[in-house]
Amino acid sequence: MISSEFVAELQRLGQLVTDYIVNFPAVRKVAPDYLKEGVLFYVKKGGKRLRPAILIWAAEAVGGQAELVLPAAAAIELSHTWTLVHDDIIDHDDVRRGGPSMHAYYRETWRSRINPDNLKDWSQNLAMLVGDIQQALATSMLNALPVEIDRDLVRWLINDLATNWVTEVLNGEMLDVEYATRSLDQLTETDILSMLDKKTASTLSWCGQTGALLGLNKLEPDHHLVKLMAELCRQAGLAFQLQDDILGIIGDEKELGKPVGSDIREGKRTVLVAYAYHHADAAGKLILQNILGKNGATPNEIDQVRAVLSNSGSIDYVRGLAADYTAQAQQLLNQLSPSKAATHLQELVSFITQRKY
Amino acid sequence: MISSEFVAELQRLGQLVTDYIVNFPAVRKVAPDYLKEGVLFYVKKGGKRLRPAILIWAAEAVGGQAELVLPAAAAIELSHTWTLVHDDIIDHDDVRRGGPSMHAYYRETWRSRINPDNLKDWSQNLAMLVGDIQQALATSMLNALPVEIDRDLVRWLINDLATNWVTEVLNGEMLDVEYATRSLDQLTETDILSMLDKKTASTLSWCGQTGALLGLNKLEPDHHLVKLMAELCRQAGLAFQLQDDILGIIGDEKELGKPVGSDIREGKRTVLVAYAYHHADAAGKLILQNILGKNGATPNEIDQVRAVLSNSGSIDYVRGLAADYTAQAQQLLNQLSPSKAATHLQELVSFITQRKY
Repeated sequence: MISSEFVAELQRLGQLVTDYIVNFPAVRKVAPDYLKEGVLFYVKKGGKRLRPAILIWAAEAVGGQAELVLPAAAAIELSHTWTLVHDDIIDHDDVRRGGPSMHAYYRETWRSRINPDNLKDWSQNLAMLVGDIQQALATSMLNALPVEIDRDLVRWLINDLATNWVTEVLNGEMLDVEYATRSLDQLTETDILSMLDKKTASTLSWCGQTGALLGLNKLEPDHHLVKLMAELCRQAGLAFQLQDDILGIIGDEKELGKPVGSDIREGKRTVLVAYAYHHADAAGKLILQNILGKNGATPNEIDQVRAVLSNSGSIDYVRGLAADYTAQAQQLLNQLSPSKAATHLQELVSFITQRKY
Repeated sequence: MISSEFVAELQRLGQLVTDYIVNFPAVRKVAPDYLKEGVLFYVKKGGKRLRPAILIWAAEAVGGQAELVLPAAAAIELSHTWTLVHDDIIDHDDVRRGGPSMHAYYRETWRSRINPDNLKDWSQNLAMLVGDIQQALATSMLNALPVEIDRDLVRWLINDLATNWVTEVLNGEMLDVEYATRSLDQLTETDILSMLDKKTASTLSWCGQTGALLGLNKLEPDHHLVKLMAELCRQAGLAFQLQDDILGIIGDEKELGKPVGSDIREGKRTVLVAYAYHHADAAGKLILQNILGKNGATPNEIDQVRAVLSNSGSIDYVRGLAADYTAQAQQLLNQLSPSKAATHLQELVSFITQRKY
């Protein structure tokens, strides 16, 4: 059960993060103006803001203060944002958070000024540079953590974001698109879960770990609370991605803010697809082989794939898997001393599999 | 006159930087393998390596040691590299350093495995992710500066690279491509020089400034040697870009390692073009208006533009401009105490306008 207090708190923190990013001095200095607009485009759209909330609550749950860790919450939100901007180019996604994606927005705003033959490249190039700048600014935000925070910890976090987080997330993203080019026979559920772990769970885990480190305000990556928080957020992250995959097949487009069925057209190798492929009959297998990854799949073809997924029991199976990860995260959360922040984290973990968007 | 000792020293430092990057632990961990290969692709090709050499010599010229600043030299080389990788996507450049550019290389290696309709996007997407990872790893390299270097200085440099360098260079790159869409009447030489200052000179200036700061090993950005080195490298950077523009029109493709004439096909607004446009007769103006930016311009059309540039005196004019910047840089260099590193910097400044590649 999600309390209205939780929802309000999530929104409040989301607004704090937006304000921080919008008013960050180096953001205000970005030029030309249309690149600055791009840097803030997804930020101003909002989104769920789960990642910065996790970081802030993880810090508070171990005794830290939200105000002191806000720059790190903004840094991971902006880091996540640049991967979305570049990922939307890669996935040809024209819709994000109920409106145009970054490159789709640039395509419209520049349509009258750019030769139509060059417009697609032009808008993708602008979006690429926006992501590049966002990556750099996220580093600056970590560097802007207040003087109360241990300086060695700040340096360590900057390096950790650059070395570990970036390479892990992009490795996951790359495998995600590469898997879509592979035959379904070649991929196991383990392969896919390992890819999701890198692509999605690593960010939530980074938020939990970083929040705990900042809350303790000590460079102790092996502290049991840091390890606990990293691990429970990783479990929550896997549940989050599995729920995302389910919503991508049977979600409501309006609530979701992005088109349902695009995972099918892109041929994404989700656990849903892997399970269905290994449990479907010959006719079902053929449907998956022929339609997954077909750019111009018709609504009827999308429905055929959806039927194979449902009939094979894969949606129930993945729901169960997400519930298992959620339960493991909740069990780890029970090891924390009771606090308002710990309660928020519990609600957040419940929200992950109950959400419709 | 360029001494063979200078050339040998440039090569020696270039090799040190290559070895540092290739053996950097976070580079070795990049996965999947084809992304790791991409991260090292331009690095292993070599190139002139002027930027890391400037940083190292700037450090030595104020009393520092090359060994202590090598990670920063590697960081700026890798930073410059990611902007090249992304810039080659933007400019549709298929050739770099005498071989395929990053996306062109991926296009060939994946041709047999990817649907031909998706191959262009696929190879550009891989190249985009390679640049993303290189940006992150450059930050890690700054963070790896040895313990002898003041920790506040290291943090300041990481922030300076992210906040100031990235935003300035990408602003310049953006203006470079945007200017190509503007009418020649709208652009002045001042606009173009200001764009070149951001796009190219800012990196050489960063190398000079950072080398001096590290050589002094003090967080004193206002120190007169730091300001002197930043300024003289900025002048040298402008001369470098002007010479680049000249070579892009009348250089030798083999020596240059990239196609001559692509600046014309892309419609680059160089000082050469601005000067020629304002000094050409009506027929010359028409040639520039019609052919600059024409993707499929024929060799004959390229030659027509080249003739307008020569006949208007623009090549001589830009040579003169480059010589002025070089002279200013040399004058500033004379303020340094004599040292081997100062001599190398003098030779480097001479090399900039004498080079054929």
